[in-house]
Amino acid sequence: MRDKFYAYIEQLQDKITLKLEEIDGKAKFQEDLWKREEGGGGRTRVIENGNIFEKGGVNISAVHGPLAPAMQQYFNVSNVDFFACGLSLVLHPENPMVPTVHANWRYFEMYDKQGNTVDQWFGGGQDLTPYYLFKEDAEHFHRISKTACDKHSLDFYPKYKRKCDDYFWNSHRNEARGIGGLFFDHLKPAEKMTIESWYDFVTEVGDSFLEAYVPIVEKRKDLAYSEENRTWQEIRRGRYVEFNLVHDKGTLFGLKTNGRIESILMSLPPHVQWIYDHHPEPGSEEERLVKVLEEPREWV
Amino acid sequence: MRDKFYAYIEQLQDKITLKLEEIDGKAKFQEDLWKREEGGGGRTRVIENGNIFEKGGVNISAVHGPLAPAMQQYFNVSNVDFFACGLSLVLHPENPMVPTVHANWRYFEMYDKQGNTVDQWFGGGQDLTPYYLFKEDAEHFHRISKTACDKHSLDFYPKYKRKCDDYFWNSHRNEARGIGGLFFDHLKPAEKMTIESWYDFVTEVGDSFLEAYVPIVEKRKDLAYSEENRTWQEIRRGRYVEFNLVHDKGTLFGLKTNGRIESILMSLPPHVQWIYDHHPEPGSEEERLVKVLEEPREWV
Repeated sequence: MRDKFYAYIEQLQDKITLKLEEIDGKAKFQEDLWKREEGGGGRTRVIENGNIFEKGGVNISAVHGPLAPAMQQYFNVSNVDFFACGLSLVLHPENPMVPTVHANWRYFEMYDKQGNTVDQWFGGGQDLTPYYLFKEDAEHFHRISKTACDKHSLDFYPKYKRKCDDYFWNSHRNEARGIGGLFFDHLKPAEKMTIESWYDFVTEVGDSFLEAYVPIVEKRKDLAYSEENRTWQEIRRGRYVEFNLVHDKGTLFGLKTNGRIESILMSLPPHVQWIYDHHPEPGSEEERLVKVLEEPREWV
Repeated sequence: MRDKFYAYIEQLQDKITLKLEEIDGKAKFQEDLWKREEGGGGRTRVIENGNIFEKGGVNISAVHGPLAPAMQQYFNVSNVDFFACGLSLVLHPENPMVPTVHANWRYFEMYDKQGNTVDQWFGGGQDLTPYYLFKEDAEHFHRISKTACDKHSLDFYPKYKRKCDDYFWNSHRNEARGIGGLFFDHLKPAEKMTIESWYDFVTEVGDSFLEAYVPIVEKRKDLAYSEENRTWQEIRRGRYVEFNLVHDKGTLFGLKTNGRIESILMSLPPHVQWIYDHHPEPGSEEERLVKVLEEPREWV
C-alpha cells in the first residue's frame, strides 16, 4: 500500500501541476527535491506571480523512521516505526473573485521493528476559501465532492462534510475558514471497508479535485476587481494565516517535529493585512460572506 | 498591590501614548473600552496610518474571576480566583529603518475564596525587532534596559537579557525574533526582594521604555528607503506573525481563553508577505541581520 499510494500521489502531482500551469498561462512550478535526515524526503513544487496564481504549492512527501516520542504517546504505542506519505496543495489566486483552495490526501502506517504493519489509515480532504461568495461555486465544489463520495457510500459526504466544517473552524474568531468541502482522517480497515477500498475512496476524491476547482477558476479569473476587493482579500488571508498557525494540526506537527519549514509554510498567502477591528460595511458583499462563515450551511 | 500597579499602568499608558502621538505628528490613538463577561476589562489604544507608526497598540487591561481549569492545572492549584493586569504594547513603524518594539509589564495574583492572596508575581519586559541593523541602536536599547536593571541588582540585566533571548526564539526557524532586551516572569517575594521591591524594579523598567525606544525612532525616521527595503520589512514581519501565533504564550493563552481578540491581535503587523524559500543576497545588509539573529549576542 505504501508504494501503491506513493505512486498515485506522484502521478497526481504531475497531473495537477500540469493542468494548473496550463490555465495560468504564465508561471511555472519550481521544483525542490529535499531529503529528511531521519528518513525519506519530498518533492515540493511552488508557483509564484502567475497570471492567476499569486502563490501556491503542490507538494508530495514520503517520510519514515522511528516514531517521535510525543507521537508514540499520542497514539498510545511504543517502539514502532512509521511511514507517512501524502500530497498537500494550497493555491492563492491573485484575483479576489477566485477562491483559495486547499487539499491533502495522505497515508499513514506504523510497523514494528520486524516490519509488520501494526496500524494503517488514510486521511485528507479538500476545501474552498472564497473572498467573495458565488453561491454556484460553493455548490459546484460540494457537488463534485459529493459525487466522488457517493460512489463509495452515501454516508460519506454528510459525514466528511461535517467533519470539514468542524475542523476548519477558527474558534478564536467564531467563524469558518471557508465554505468547507471534505475532511476525513483515520480511515482504517473496518466492516466492509478494507484498506484497499479506502484507497479507492481517497483516490476517487483526489481524482475529483481538478474537476471541483478548475471550472470555478475559469469562471472567475477574468472578473474585474478593485483595490478595495484586494484589501478585503488580504484581510481574509490574515484569517487563513491565523488558522494555519494557531489551529492546523498538520502545520503545528510539522513545525514542532523539524519538518521542512519552507514546504510546510508554502501554505501561507503572499500578501496579507491585519487591520485593527475591521468590520465589513453592513449590507455589503463582504458582510454577506462573513455571515455565511459564521454558520456552516448545506450546499447540495 | 493590585490597585497600586493598575494605577501605575494607567498613567504609563497615558504617558506613552501622548509621547508617541507627539513624535508621530499625524495619527492619534483610537481608544476602545471593553468589558470582560467573567470580570474586568480593558482600555485598548490603537494608532494606524501615522507618519511614523503604520500600526501599533498600547493596551491596558485588568481581569479577574475564577481561574480557568486548564490554568489551575498548569499552576497546580484548585478553587482559586485570579487577578491579572498589565500594559502591552507593540509598534510597527512604516519606515523599515525604524525597528518594531514590543513591551509588556504585568502583575498576576491568585487568591482563595476568602480573598486571601495565595500567590502573586510580576512579569514583563521589552524587546526590539529591527529590519535593518544599526549596531548603536541595539546598544542603546540594551544600555537603557541595563541601567534600569542595575539600580536594583547587578544580576538582573544578564539574567533577564538571556531569558529574553531564550523566549523570543523562533525555534522552527532557528533564529531570534529580534535583538532582544529584557524578559522576566514569576518575580515573587523571595530573599531580599519583597513584592514592593519587585514593583519598584518593574516600574523602573516601564519608566525606561520611552528613553530606550524614542531616540532610535528620532534617529531613523527620516532615513530614505526603497521598495526592496519595504519588501524585506514585510517578509520579516511574517516571522513576527509566526512567533506570535505559534510560540507566544500570552497570545495563545488569550486566544484559547476567550480574551478580546482584537486587543490580543493588535500585535500583528499591518502589511505582511510570505515568499517561498526567500534568502537575502550574500553580503547584503539583510543577510547581516539574519546572521545576527541566528546567534544572540551581548550588546553592552
